[in-house]
Amino acid sequence: MKIIKRVVDIRKETETLRKDGKIVGLVSTMGYFHDGHLSLMRRAKKECGKTVVSIFVNPAQFGPGEDLKKYPRNFRRDYKLAEKEGVDYIFSPSAEEMYKPGYGTFVEVETLSKIMCGRARPGHFRGVCTVVLKLFNIVNPHRAYFGEKDYQQLVIIKKMVKDLNLNLEIKGCPIIREKDGLALSSRNKYLSGEERENAAILNKCLETAREMIGGGERNLEKVKGCILERLRKNRFIKKVDYFDFRNTATLEEIKKIKKEQDKILAATAAWVGNTRLIDNKIIKV
Amino acid sequence: MKIIKRVVDIRKETETLRKDGKIVGLVSTMGYFHDGHLSLMRRAKKECGKTVVSIFVNPAQFGPGEDLKKYPRNFRRDYKLAEKEGVDYIFSPSAEEMYKPGYGTFVEVETLSKIMCGRARPGHFRGVCTVVLKLFNIVNPHRAYFGEKDYQQLVIIKKMVKDLNLNLEIKGCPIIREKDGLALSSRNKYLSGEERENAAILNKCLETAREMIGGGERNLEKVKGCILERLRKNRFIKKVDYFDFRNTATLEEIKKIKKEQDKILAATAAWVGNTRLIDNKIIKV
Repeated sequence: MKIIKRVVDIRKETETLRKDGKIVGLVSTMGYFHDGHLSLMRRAKKECGKTVVSIFVNPAQFGPGEDLKKYPRNFRRDYKLAEKEGVDYIFSPSAEEMYKPGYGTFVEVETLSKIMCGRARPGHFRGVCTVVLKLFNIVNPHRAYFGEKDYQQLVIIKKMVKDLNLNLEIKGCPIIREKDGLALSSRNKYLSGEERENAAILNKCLETAREMIGGGERNLEKVKGCILERLRKNRFIKKVDYFDFRNTATLEEIKKIKKEQDKILAATAAWVGNTRLIDNKIIKV
Repeated sequence: MKIIKRVVDIRKETETLRKDGKIVGLVSTMGYFHDGHLSLMRRAKKECGKTVVSIFVNPAQFGPGEDLKKYPRNFRRDYKLAEKEGVDYIFSPSAEEMYKPGYGTFVEVETLSKIMCGRARPGHFRGVCTVVLKLFNIVNPHRAYFGEKDYQQLVIIKKMVKDLNLNLEIKGCPIIREKDGLALSSRNKYLSGEERENAAILNKCLETAREMIGGGERNLEKVKGCILERLRKNRFIKKVDYFDFRNTATLEEIKKIKKEQDKILAATAAWVGNTRLIDNKIIKV
Protein backbone atom coordinates (compact mmCIF):
# COMPACT_ATOMS: atom_id res chain seq x y z
CA MET A 1 0.00 0.00 0.00
CA LYS A 2 1.36 3.39 -1.02
CA ILE A 3 0.79 6.41 1.21
CA ILE A 4 0.63 9.61 -0.81
CA LYS A 5 0.42 13.18 0.48
CA ARG A 6 0.69 15.33 -2.64
CA VAL A 7 -1.96 16.01 -5.27
CA VAL A 8 0.52 15.70 -8.15
CA ASP A 9 1.69 12.31 -6.93
CA ILE A 10 -1.70 10.61 -6.56
CA ARG A 11 -2.75 12.09 -9.91
CA LYS A 12 0.30 10.57 -11.58
CA GLU A 13 -0.49 7.18 -10.04
CA THR A 14 -4.13 7.05 -11.12
CA GLU A 15 -3.31 8.41 -14.59
CA THR A 16 -0.96 5.47 -15.05
CA LEU A 17 -3.55 3.03 -13.67
CA ARG A 18 -6.15 4.34 -16.13
CA LYS A 19 -3.73 4.06 -19.04
CA ASP A 20 -3.12 0.44 -18.01
CA GLY A 21 -6.87 -0.17 -18.24
CA LYS A 22 -7.41 -0.51 -14.49
CA ILE A 23 -10.76 0.45 -12.93
CA VAL A 24 -10.07 2.90 -10.10
CA GLY A 25 -12.32 2.98 -7.02
CA LEU A 26 -12.28 5.80 -4.47
CA VAL A 27 -13.39 5.73 -0.86
CA SER A 28 -13.22 9.27 0.52
CA THR A 29 -13.12 9.43 4.31
CA MET A 30 -12.22 11.64 7.24
CA GLY A 31 -10.33 8.73 8.79
CA TYR A 32 -10.70 7.17 12.25
CA PHE A 33 -11.93 4.02 10.57
CA HIS A 34 -14.68 1.78 11.84
CA ASP A 35 -16.36 -1.18 10.21
CA GLY A 36 -18.49 1.17 8.10
CA HIS A 37 -15.41 2.59 6.38
CA LEU A 38 -13.92 -0.88 6.01
CA SER A 39 -17.10 -2.17 4.37
CA LEU A 40 -16.74 0.57 1.72
CA MET A 41 -13.14 -0.47 1.11
CA ARG A 42 -14.15 -4.13 0.78
CA ARG A 43 -16.85 -3.22 -1.73
CA ALA A 44 -14.46 -1.03 -3.75
CA LYS A 45 -11.81 -3.74 -3.63
CA LYS A 46 -14.32 -6.31 -4.91
CA GLU A 47 -15.57 -4.13 -7.78
CA CYS A 48 -12.46 -2.23 -8.89
CA GLY A 49 -8.98 -3.10 -10.07
CA LYS A 50 -7.33 -0.58 -7.73
CA THR A 51 -8.67 1.08 -4.61
CA VAL A 52 -7.74 4.55 -3.38
CA VAL A 53 -8.77 5.62 0.11
CA SER A 54 -8.53 9.30 0.92
CA ILE A 55 -8.20 10.46 4.52
CA PHE A 56 -8.83 14.16 4.98
CA VAL A 57 -10.56 15.92 7.85
CA ASN A 58 -12.03 18.65 5.68
CA PRO A 59 -12.12 22.03 7.46
CA ALA A 60 -14.57 23.42 4.88
CA GLN A 61 -17.41 21.18 6.05
CA PHE A 62 -17.19 22.13 9.73
CA GLY A 63 -19.05 25.21 10.93
CA PRO A 64 -17.72 27.63 13.55
CA GLY A 65 -18.08 25.99 16.96
CA GLU A 66 -18.26 22.50 15.47
CA ASP A 67 -15.89 19.65 16.31
CA LEU A 68 -13.15 20.17 13.68
CA LYS A 69 -10.38 20.38 16.25
CA LYS A 70 -11.46 17.47 18.41
CA TYR A 71 -12.58 15.25 15.50
CA PRO A 72 -10.89 11.92 16.27
CA ARG A 73 -7.74 11.13 14.27
CA ASN A 74 -5.45 8.12 14.31
CA PHE A 75 -3.66 7.89 11.00
CA ARG A 76 -1.27 5.10 11.95
CA ARG A 77 -4.14 2.84 13.00
CA ASP A 78 -6.07 3.83 9.83
CA TYR A 79 -3.14 2.92 7.59
CA LYS A 80 -2.87 -0.51 9.21
CA LEU A 81 -6.60 -1.20 8.87
CA ALA A 82 -6.63 -0.10 5.23
CA GLU A 83 -3.58 -2.21 4.43
CA LYS A 84 -5.27 -5.23 5.96
CA GLU A 85 -8.21 -4.69 3.60
CA GLY A 86 -5.86 -4.71 0.62
CA VAL A 87 -6.24 -1.01 -0.19
CA ASP A 88 -3.72 0.05 -2.87
CA TYR A 89 -3.31 3.76 -2.12
CA ILE A 90 -3.91 6.05 0.81
CA PHE A 91 -4.18 9.71 -0.16
CA SER A 92 -3.87 11.79 3.00
CA PRO A 93 -3.09 15.40 2.07
CA SER A 94 -2.58 18.26 4.49
CA ALA A 95 -5.17 21.05 4.76
CA GLU A 96 -2.63 23.35 3.05
CA GLU A 97 -2.26 20.92 0.14
CA MET A 98 -6.03 20.91 -0.41
CA TYR A 99 -6.72 24.60 0.32
CA LYS A 100 -3.85 26.78 -0.80
CA PRO A 101 -3.62 30.32 0.61
CA GLY A 102 -6.25 32.46 -1.12
CA TYR A 103 -8.49 29.49 -1.85
CA GLY A 104 -11.86 30.78 -3.03
CA THR A 105 -13.95 28.32 -5.08
CA PHE A 106 -16.99 26.53 -3.69
CA VAL A 107 -19.63 24.19 -5.08
CA GLU A 108 -23.12 23.77 -3.74
CA VAL A 109 -26.16 21.72 -4.63
CA GLU A 110 -28.32 24.64 -3.67
CA THR A 111 -31.63 22.82 -3.90
CA LEU A 112 -30.70 20.11 -1.37
CA SER A 113 -28.17 21.68 0.96
CA LYS A 114 -30.43 23.78 3.16
CA ILE A 115 -32.81 21.09 4.43
CA MET A 116 -32.35 18.37 7.09
CA CYS A 117 -28.70 18.39 8.25
CA GLY A 118 -28.09 21.49 6.12
CA ARG A 119 -30.53 23.50 8.21
CA ALA A 120 -28.65 22.72 11.41
CA ARG A 121 -25.23 22.96 9.77
CA PRO A 122 -25.18 25.89 7.32
CA GLY A 123 -22.35 25.56 4.81
CA HIS A 124 -21.75 21.91 5.70
CA PHE A 125 -22.78 20.42 2.36
CA ARG A 126 -21.09 23.23 0.45
CA GLY A 127 -17.87 22.12 2.16
CA VAL A 128 -18.63 18.46 1.46
CA CYS A 129 -19.38 19.05 -2.24
CA THR A 130 -16.31 21.20 -2.68
CA VAL A 131 -13.90 18.67 -1.18
CA VAL A 132 -15.55 15.70 -2.87
CA LEU A 133 -15.39 17.44 -6.26
CA LYS A 134 -11.73 18.25 -5.63
CA LEU A 135 -11.03 14.61 -4.70
CA PHE A 136 -12.83 13.41 -7.82
CA ASN A 137 -10.74 15.78 -9.95
CA ILE A 138 -7.52 14.76 -8.22
CA VAL A 139 -8.02 10.97 -8.14
CA ASN A 140 -10.21 10.71 -11.27
CA PRO A 141 -11.83 7.45 -10.18
CA HIS A 142 -14.28 5.37 -12.23
CA ARG A 143 -16.36 4.73 -9.12
CA ALA A 144 -16.69 6.33 -5.71
CA TYR A 145 -18.20 4.67 -2.64
CA PHE A 146 -20.23 6.44 0.03
CA GLY A 147 -22.08 5.11 3.06
CA GLU A 148 -25.85 5.37 3.29
CA LYS A 149 -25.43 6.49 6.90
CA ASP A 150 -24.90 10.00 5.52
CA TYR A 151 -27.92 9.57 3.29
CA GLN A 152 -28.44 13.25 2.49
CA GLN A 153 -24.76 13.53 1.59
CA LEU A 154 -25.11 10.55 -0.76
CA VAL A 155 -28.14 12.09 -2.52
CA ILE A 156 -26.37 15.46 -2.78
CA ILE A 157 -23.21 13.93 -4.25
CA LYS A 158 -25.23 11.93 -6.77
CA LYS A 159 -27.02 15.14 -7.73
CA MET A 160 -23.75 17.07 -8.06
CA VAL A 161 -22.33 14.33 -10.29
CA LYS A 162 -25.41 14.45 -12.52
CA ASP A 163 -25.71 18.25 -12.62
CA LEU A 164 -22.01 18.88 -13.29
CA ASN A 165 -21.76 16.03 -15.84
CA LEU A 166 -19.02 14.27 -13.89
CA ASN A 167 -17.95 11.08 -15.57
CA LEU A 168 -18.01 8.61 -12.69
CA GLU A 169 -20.37 6.31 -10.84
CA ILE A 170 -21.49 6.85 -7.24
CA LYS A 171 -22.15 3.72 -5.21
CA GLY A 172 -24.13 3.84 -1.97
CA CYS A 173 -23.31 1.18 0.63
CA PRO A 174 -25.47 -0.04 3.55
CA ILE A 175 -25.19 1.29 7.10
CA ILE A 176 -23.15 -0.89 9.45
CA ARG A 177 -24.51 -1.10 13.00
CA GLU A 178 -23.44 -2.16 16.46
CA LYS A 179 -25.23 -5.16 18.02
CA ASP A 180 -27.78 -2.89 19.70
CA GLY A 181 -28.51 -1.14 16.39
CA LEU A 182 -26.45 2.05 16.84
CA ALA A 183 -25.11 3.11 13.44
CA LEU A 184 -21.31 3.16 13.37
CA SER A 185 -19.82 6.66 13.39
CA SER A 186 -16.45 8.09 14.32
CA ARG A 187 -18.38 10.47 16.57
CA ASN A 188 -19.68 7.58 18.73
CA LYS A 189 -16.30 7.86 20.44
CA TYR A 190 -17.51 11.09 22.07
CA LEU A 191 -20.31 9.29 23.97
CA SER A 192 -20.06 8.56 27.70
CA GLY A 193 -21.04 5.07 28.92
CA GLU A 194 -24.60 6.06 29.70
CA GLU A 195 -24.97 8.10 26.53
CA ARG A 196 -23.71 5.15 24.50
CA GLU A 197 -26.33 2.88 26.05
CA ASN A 198 -29.07 5.35 25.18
CA ALA A 199 -27.82 6.24 21.69
CA ALA A 200 -29.41 3.11 20.21
CA ILE A 201 -32.77 4.86 20.68
CA LEU A 202 -32.30 6.56 17.30
CA ASN A 203 -32.29 3.23 15.50
CA LYS A 204 -35.12 1.99 17.70
CA CYS A 205 -37.27 4.98 16.75
CA LEU A 206 -36.59 4.38 13.06
CA GLU A 207 -37.62 0.74 13.65
CA THR A 208 -40.80 1.91 15.34
CA ALA A 209 -41.56 4.11 12.34
CA ARG A 210 -41.08 1.11 10.08
CA GLU A 211 -43.41 -0.96 12.25
CA MET A 212 -46.12 1.70 12.40
CA ILE A 213 -46.00 2.13 8.62
CA GLY A 214 -45.85 -1.65 8.15
CA GLY A 215 -48.97 -1.84 10.34
CA GLY A 216 -50.83 0.38 7.88
CA GLU A 217 -50.31 3.90 9.25
CA ARG A 218 -50.30 6.34 6.31
CA ASN A 219 -50.28 9.63 8.23
CA LEU A 220 -46.60 10.28 8.76
CA GLU A 221 -47.18 13.39 10.84
CA LYS A 222 -48.78 11.10 13.39
CA VAL A 223 -45.83 8.67 13.31
CA LYS A 224 -43.45 11.62 13.67
CA GLY A 225 -45.43 12.95 16.64
CA CYS A 226 -45.21 9.63 18.50
CA ILE A 227 -41.50 9.34 17.86
CA LEU A 228 -40.61 12.91 18.80
CA GLU A 229 -42.50 12.40 22.07
CA ARG A 230 -40.52 9.27 22.78
CA LEU A 231 -37.21 10.98 21.98
CA ARG A 232 -38.04 13.96 24.15
CA LYS A 233 -38.76 11.67 27.09
CA ASN A 234 -35.23 10.28 27.02
CA ARG A 235 -33.09 12.50 29.23
CA PHE A 236 -29.92 11.77 27.23
CA ILE A 237 -31.45 13.23 24.07
CA LYS A 238 -30.62 16.91 24.43
CA LYS A 239 -32.17 18.06 21.18
CA VAL A 240 -33.74 16.61 18.05
CA ASP A 241 -32.64 18.50 14.92
CA TYR A 242 -35.17 16.61 12.79
CA PHE A 243 -37.03 13.35 12.35
CA ASP A 244 -38.31 13.42 8.79
CA PHE A 245 -39.89 11.25 6.17
CA ARG A 246 -38.51 12.03 2.73
CA ASN A 247 -38.49 10.90 -0.87
CA THR A 248 -35.48 8.57 -1.20
CA ALA A 249 -34.33 10.19 -4.47
CA THR A 250 -35.29 13.87 -4.17
CA LEU A 251 -35.44 14.29 -0.35
CA GLU A 252 -38.82 16.03 -0.69
CA GLU A 253 -40.71 15.78 2.58
CA ILE A 254 -43.58 13.29 2.70
CA LYS A 255 -46.40 13.91 5.16
CA LYS A 256 -48.83 11.29 3.94
CA ILE A 257 -47.95 8.08 2.11
CA LYS A 258 -49.56 7.95 -1.32
CA LYS A 259 -50.25 4.95 -3.53
CA GLU A 260 -47.41 5.61 -5.97
CA GLN A 261 -44.75 5.45 -3.24
CA ASP A 262 -43.00 2.12 -2.85
CA LYS A 263 -40.37 3.26 -0.35
CA ILE A 264 -39.60 6.27 1.81
CA LEU A 265 -36.63 7.52 3.74
CA ALA A 266 -36.94 7.98 7.50
CA ALA A 267 -34.03 10.11 8.69
CA THR A 268 -33.09 11.75 11.95
CA ALA A 269 -30.41 13.88 13.57
CA ALA A 270 -30.32 14.26 17.32
CA TRP A 271 -27.97 15.31 20.07
CA VAL A 272 -27.05 12.59 22.57
CA GLY A 273 -25.47 14.76 25.24
CA ASN A 274 -23.06 16.98 23.36
CA THR A 275 -22.74 14.61 20.42
CA ARG A 276 -24.78 15.08 17.26
CA LEU A 277 -25.68 11.72 15.73
CA ILE A 278 -27.55 10.89 12.53
CA ASP A 279 -29.29 7.77 11.37
CA ASN A 280 -31.81 6.69 8.75
CA LYS A 281 -33.70 3.79 7.27
CA ILE A 282 -35.31 3.12 3.93
CA ILE A 283 -38.81 1.88 4.66
CA LYS A 284 -40.64 -0.24 2.09
CA VAL A 285 -44.26 0.80 1.83
CA MET B 1 -16.85 18.99 -39.08
CA LYS B 2 -19.30 17.11 -36.85
CA ILE B 3 -22.18 18.97 -35.22
CA ILE B 4 -23.16 17.36 -31.93
CA LYS B 5 -26.10 18.25 -29.69
CA ARG B 6 -26.02 15.60 -26.97
CA VAL B 7 -23.69 15.37 -23.97
CA VAL B 8 -23.26 11.60 -24.32
CA ASP B 9 -22.26 11.94 -27.97
CA ILE B 10 -19.54 14.58 -27.60
CA ARG B 11 -18.22 12.70 -24.57
CA LYS B 12 -17.94 9.51 -26.62
CA GLU B 13 -16.06 11.39 -29.37
CA THR B 14 -13.50 13.03 -27.09
CA GLU B 15 -13.00 9.82 -25.08
CA THR B 16 -12.03 8.09 -28.31
CA LEU B 17 -9.78 11.00 -29.33
CA ARG B 18 -7.98 10.83 -25.98
CA LYS B 19 -7.53 7.06 -26.27
CA ASP B 20 -5.99 7.65 -29.69
CA GLY B 21 -3.48 10.01 -28.08
CA LYS B 22 -4.97 13.19 -29.57
CA ILE B 23 -4.67 16.52 -27.74
CA VAL B 24 -8.16 18.01 -27.46
CA GLY B 25 -8.65 21.80 -27.46
CA LEU B 26 -11.89 23.48 -26.44
CA VAL B 27 -13.16 26.92 -27.41
CA SER B 28 -16.35 27.60 -25.43
CA THR B 29 -18.51 30.35 -26.92
CA MET B 30 -22.01 31.78 -26.95
CA GLY B 31 -21.88 31.86 -30.77
CA TYR B 32 -22.48 34.77 -33.15
CA PHE B 33 -18.85 34.54 -34.15
CA HIS B 34 -16.58 37.46 -34.88
CA ASP B 35 -12.87 37.55 -35.51
CA GLY B 36 -12.19 37.26 -31.78
CA HIS B 37 -13.84 33.84 -31.65
CA LEU B 38 -12.13 32.81 -34.86
CA SER B 39 -8.73 33.78 -33.46
CA LEU B 40 -9.34 31.39 -30.53
CA MET B 41 -10.22 28.61 -32.96
CA ARG B 42 -7.08 29.26 -34.99
CA ARG B 43 -4.94 29.15 -31.88
CA ALA B 44 -6.57 25.91 -30.67
CA LYS B 45 -6.23 24.40 -34.13
CA LYS B 46 -2.54 25.28 -34.18
CA GLU B 47 -1.80 23.85 -30.72
CA CYS B 48 -4.13 20.82 -30.50
CA GLY B 49 -4.76 17.68 -32.49
CA LYS B 50 -8.52 18.17 -32.45
CA THR B 51 -10.58 21.28 -31.80
CA VAL B 52 -14.03 21.35 -30.23
CA VAL B 53 -16.04 24.57 -30.32
CA SER B 54 -19.06 24.77 -28.05
CA ILE B 55 -21.89 27.16 -28.83
CA PHE B 56 -24.26 27.69 -25.93
CA VAL B 57 -26.04 30.86 -24.90
CA ASN B 58 -25.94 30.07 -21.20
CA PRO B 59 -29.07 31.23 -19.37
CA ALA B 60 -27.35 30.85 -15.97
CA GLN B 61 -24.98 33.77 -16.63
CA PHE B 62 -27.68 36.29 -17.54
CA GLY B 63 -29.39 38.22 -14.76
CA PRO B 64 -33.07 39.14 -14.73
CA GLY B 65 -33.60 42.03 -17.16
CA GLU B 66 -30.39 41.26 -19.06
CA ASP B 67 -30.20 40.46 -22.78
CA LEU B 68 -30.58 36.65 -22.76
CA LYS B 69 -33.56 36.69 -25.13
CA LYS B 70 -32.18 39.20 -27.59
CA TYR B 71 -28.59 37.94 -27.47
CA PRO B 72 -27.67 37.59 -31.17
CA ARG B 73 -27.75 34.07 -32.58
CA ASN B 74 -26.97 32.73 -36.06
CA PHE B 75 -25.99 29.10 -35.81
CA ARG B 76 -25.91 28.39 -39.54
CA ARG B 77 -23.44 31.21 -40.13
CA ASP B 78 -21.41 30.10 -37.08
CA TYR B 79 -21.16 26.53 -38.38
CA LYS B 80 -19.89 27.77 -41.74
CA LEU B 81 -17.28 30.04 -40.15
CA ALA B 82 -16.06 27.29 -37.81
CA GLU B 83 -15.86 24.80 -40.66
CA LYS B 84 -13.76 27.27 -42.65
CA GLU B 85 -11.33 27.44 -39.70
CA GLY B 86 -10.97 23.66 -39.75
CA VAL B 87 -12.79 23.07 -36.45
CA ASP B 88 -13.42 19.35 -35.90
CA TYR B 89 -16.48 19.38 -33.67
CA ILE B 90 -19.25 21.82 -32.84
CA PHE B 91 -21.03 21.05 -29.59
CA SER B 92 -24.25 23.06 -29.50
CA PRO B 93 -26.56 21.62 -26.86
CA SER B 94 -30.03 22.89 -25.99
CA ALA B 95 -30.66 24.64 -22.67
CA GLU B 96 -32.62 21.55 -21.58
CA GLU B 97 -29.67 19.29 -22.39
CA MET B 98 -27.39 21.40 -20.17
CA TYR B 99 -29.86 22.18 -17.38
CA LYS B 100 -32.24 19.28 -16.81
CA PRO B 101 -35.45 19.97 -14.88
CA GLY B 102 -34.60 20.31 -11.20
CA TYR B 103 -31.04 21.44 -11.92
CA GLY B 104 -29.51 22.73 -8.69
CA THR B 105 -25.68 22.76 -8.58
CA PHE B 106 -23.61 25.93 -8.87
CA VAL B 107 -19.93 26.79 -8.65
CA GLU B 108 -18.53 30.14 -7.67
CA VAL B 109 -15.08 31.64 -7.23
CA GLU B 110 -16.40 33.62 -4.30
CA THR B 111 -13.32 35.76 -3.82
CA LEU B 112 -13.33 37.18 -7.36
CA SER B 113 -16.94 37.14 -8.49
CA LYS B 114 -18.30 40.15 -6.65
CA ILE B 115 -15.95 42.86 -7.92
CA MET B 116 -15.78 44.68 -11.28
CA CYS B 117 -18.33 43.10 -13.66
CA GLY B 118 -19.58 40.92 -10.80
CA ARG B 119 -20.74 43.98 -8.88
CA ALA B 120 -22.91 45.15 -11.76
CA ARG B 121 -23.99 41.65 -12.71
CA PRO B 122 -24.68 39.62 -9.55
CA GLY B 123 -24.63 35.88 -10.25
CA HIS B 124 -23.00 36.35 -13.65
CA PHE B 125 -19.69 34.66 -12.85
CA ARG B 126 -21.45 31.93 -10.86
CA GLY B 127 -23.30 31.13 -14.09
CA VAL B 128 -20.10 31.34 -16.12
CA CYS B 129 -18.15 29.06 -13.77
CA THR B 130 -20.97 26.55 -13.61
CA VAL B 131 -21.35 26.21 -17.38
CA VAL B 132 -17.60 26.24 -18.01
CA LEU B 133 -17.05 23.51 -15.42
CA LYS B 134 -19.85 21.49 -17.01
CA LEU B 135 -18.30 21.93 -20.46
CA PHE B 136 -14.89 20.90 -19.12
CA ASN B 137 -16.44 17.77 -17.59
CA ILE B 138 -18.38 16.97 -20.76
CA VAL B 139 -15.65 17.60 -23.34
CA ASN B 140 -12.66 16.75 -21.10
CA PRO B 141 -10.20 18.86 -23.12
CA HIS B 142 -6.46 19.08 -22.51
CA ARG B 143 -6.57 22.82 -23.18
CA ALA B 144 -9.27 25.48 -23.22
CA TYR B 145 -8.99 28.87 -24.91
CA PHE B 146 -10.52 32.10 -23.63
CA GLY B 147 -10.26 35.66 -24.90
CA GLU B 148 -8.56 38.34 -22.80
CA LYS B 149 -11.44 40.67 -23.66
CA ASP B 150 -13.33 39.07 -20.77
CA TYR B 151 -10.26 39.46 -18.59
CA GLN B 152 -12.01 38.97 -15.25
CA GLN B 153 -13.66 35.84 -16.62
CA LEU B 154 -10.26 34.51 -17.67
CA VAL B 155 -8.76 35.11 -14.21
CA ILE B 156 -11.79 33.53 -12.53
CA ILE B 157 -11.67 30.44 -14.73
CA LYS B 158 -7.93 30.03 -14.11
CA LYS B 159 -8.62 30.31 -10.38
CA MET B 160 -11.45 27.77 -10.55
CA VAL B 161 -9.20 25.34 -12.41
CA LYS B 162 -6.49 25.73 -9.78
CA ASP B 163 -8.80 25.61 -6.76
CA LEU B 164 -10.82 22.62 -7.97
CA ASN B 165 -7.70 20.73 -9.17
CA LEU B 166 -9.01 20.46 -12.71
CA ASN B 167 -6.57 18.69 -14.96
CA LEU B 168 -6.39 21.03 -17.97
CA GLU B 169 -4.60 24.12 -19.18
CA ILE B 170 -6.28 27.50 -19.66
CA LYS B 171 -4.91 29.65 -22.48
CA GLY B 172 -5.68 33.36 -22.68
CA CYS B 173 -5.71 34.93 -26.16
CA PRO B 174 -5.30 38.61 -27.12
CA ILE B 175 -8.21 40.98 -27.75
CA ILE B 176 -9.07 41.49 -31.42
CA ARG B 177 -10.09 45.06 -32.29
CA GLU B 178 -11.79 46.99 -35.08
CA LYS B 179 -9.67 49.52 -36.99
CA ASP B 180 -10.74 52.33 -34.66
CA GLY B 181 -9.78 50.23 -31.63
CA LEU B 182 -13.21 49.00 -30.52
CA ALA B 183 -12.81 45.52 -29.03
CA LEU B 184 -14.81 42.93 -30.97
CA SER B 185 -17.93 41.74 -29.18
CA SER B 186 -21.16 40.08 -30.26
CA ARG B 187 -22.90 42.89 -28.39
CA ASN B 188 -21.45 45.56 -30.75
CA LYS B 189 -24.31 44.53 -33.02
CA TYR B 190 -26.70 46.35 -30.64
CA LEU B 191 -25.03 49.74 -31.29
CA SER B 192 -26.64 52.40 -33.50
CA GLY B 193 -24.43 54.15 -36.08
CA GLU B 194 -23.65 57.08 -33.79
CA GLU B 195 -23.14 54.84 -30.78
CA ARG B 196 -20.77 52.66 -32.79
CA GLU B 197 -18.69 55.71 -33.75
CA ASN B 198 -18.44 56.75 -30.10
CA ALA B 199 -17.84 53.27 -28.68
CA ALA B 200 -14.13 53.43 -29.54
CA ILE B 201 -13.78 55.91 -26.67
CA LEU B 202 -13.37 52.98 -24.27
CA ASN B 203 -10.21 51.83 -26.01
CA LYS B 204 -9.06 55.44 -26.34
CA CYS B 205 -9.41 55.99 -22.60
CA LEU B 206 -7.42 52.81 -21.91
CA GLU B 207 -4.77 54.17 -24.29
CA THR B 208 -4.78 57.49 -22.45
CA ALA B 209 -4.24 55.62 -19.17
CA ARG B 210 -1.30 53.83 -20.74
CA GLU B 211 0.15 57.13 -21.95
CA MET B 212 -0.27 58.87 -18.60
CA ILE B 213 1.39 55.96 -16.80
CA GLY B 214 4.06 55.77 -19.50
CA GLY B 215 4.66 59.46 -18.88
CA GLY B 216 5.48 58.73 -15.26
CA GLU B 217 2.15 59.19 -13.46
CA ARG B 218 2.07 56.83 -10.46
CA ASN B 219 -1.13 58.03 -8.81
CA LEU B 220 -3.78 55.93 -10.48
CA GLU B 221 -6.65 57.67 -8.70
CA LYS B 222 -5.62 60.77 -10.61
CA VAL B 223 -5.54 58.89 -13.93
CA LYS B 224 -8.93 57.40 -13.15
CA GLY B 225 -10.34 60.84 -12.33
CA CYS B 226 -9.24 62.28 -15.70
CA ILE B 227 -10.67 59.37 -17.60
CA LEU B 228 -14.01 59.26 -15.77
CA GLU B 229 -14.40 62.96 -16.49
CA ARG B 230 -13.75 62.37 -20.18
CA LEU B 231 -16.19 59.47 -20.31
CA ARG B 232 -18.89 61.46 -18.55
CA LYS B 233 -18.53 64.26 -21.07
CA ASN B 234 -19.44 61.91 -23.94
CA ARG B 235 -23.21 62.00 -24.32
CA PHE B 236 -23.33 58.44 -25.71
CA ILE B 237 -21.83 57.01 -22.51
CA LYS B 238 -24.90 56.50 -20.38
CA LYS B 239 -23.12 55.03 -17.37
CA VAL B 240 -19.67 53.85 -16.34
CA ASP B 241 -19.85 50.68 -14.23
CA TYR B 242 -16.14 50.90 -13.44
CA PHE B 243 -12.78 52.02 -14.69
CA ASP B 244 -10.26 50.23 -12.51
CA PHE B 245 -6.59 49.48 -12.22
CA ARG B 246 -6.01 45.95 -10.94
CA ASN B 247 -3.36 43.32 -10.33
CA THR B 248 -3.25 41.21 -13.52
CA ALA B 249 -3.20 37.92 -11.58
CA THR B 250 -5.29 38.54 -8.45
CA LEU B 251 -7.50 41.45 -9.63
CA GLU B 252 -6.70 43.35 -6.42
CA GLU B 253 -7.26 47.05 -6.93
CA ILE B 254 -4.16 49.23 -7.33
CA LYS B 255 -4.38 52.89 -6.39
CA LYS B 256 -0.72 53.77 -6.58
CA ILE B 257 1.91 52.04 -8.68
CA LYS B 258 4.68 50.58 -6.54
CA LYS B 259 8.20 49.60 -7.49
CA GLU B 260 7.57 45.83 -7.48
CA GLN B 261 4.83 46.08 -10.13
CA ASP B 262 5.90 45.39 -13.69
CA LYS B 263 2.42 45.44 -15.24
CA ILE B 264 -1.12 46.34 -14.28
CA LEU B 265 -4.55 45.72 -15.71
CA ALA B 266 -6.67 48.69 -16.74
CA ALA B 267 -10.25 47.51 -17.18
CA THR B 268 -13.56 49.19 -17.79
CA ALA B 269 -17.24 48.48 -18.28
CA ALA B 270 -19.54 51.19 -19.59
CA TRP B 271 -22.93 51.59 -21.18
CA VAL B 272 -22.92 53.00 -24.69
CA GLY B 273 -26.61 53.80 -25.02
CA ASN B 274 -28.38 50.65 -23.88
CA THR B 275 -25.40 48.40 -24.59
CA ARG B 276 -22.97 47.38 -21.88
CA LEU B 277 -19.45 47.07 -23.28
CA ILE B 278 -16.23 45.97 -21.60
CA ASP B 279 -12.60 46.48 -22.52
CA ASN B 280 -9.18 46.28 -20.92
CA LYS B 281 -5.49 46.62 -21.49
CA ILE B 282 -2.41 45.26 -19.77
CA ILE B 283 -0.12 48.21 -19.14
CA LYS B 284 3.59 47.65 -18.72
CA VAL B 285 4.96 49.80 -15.94
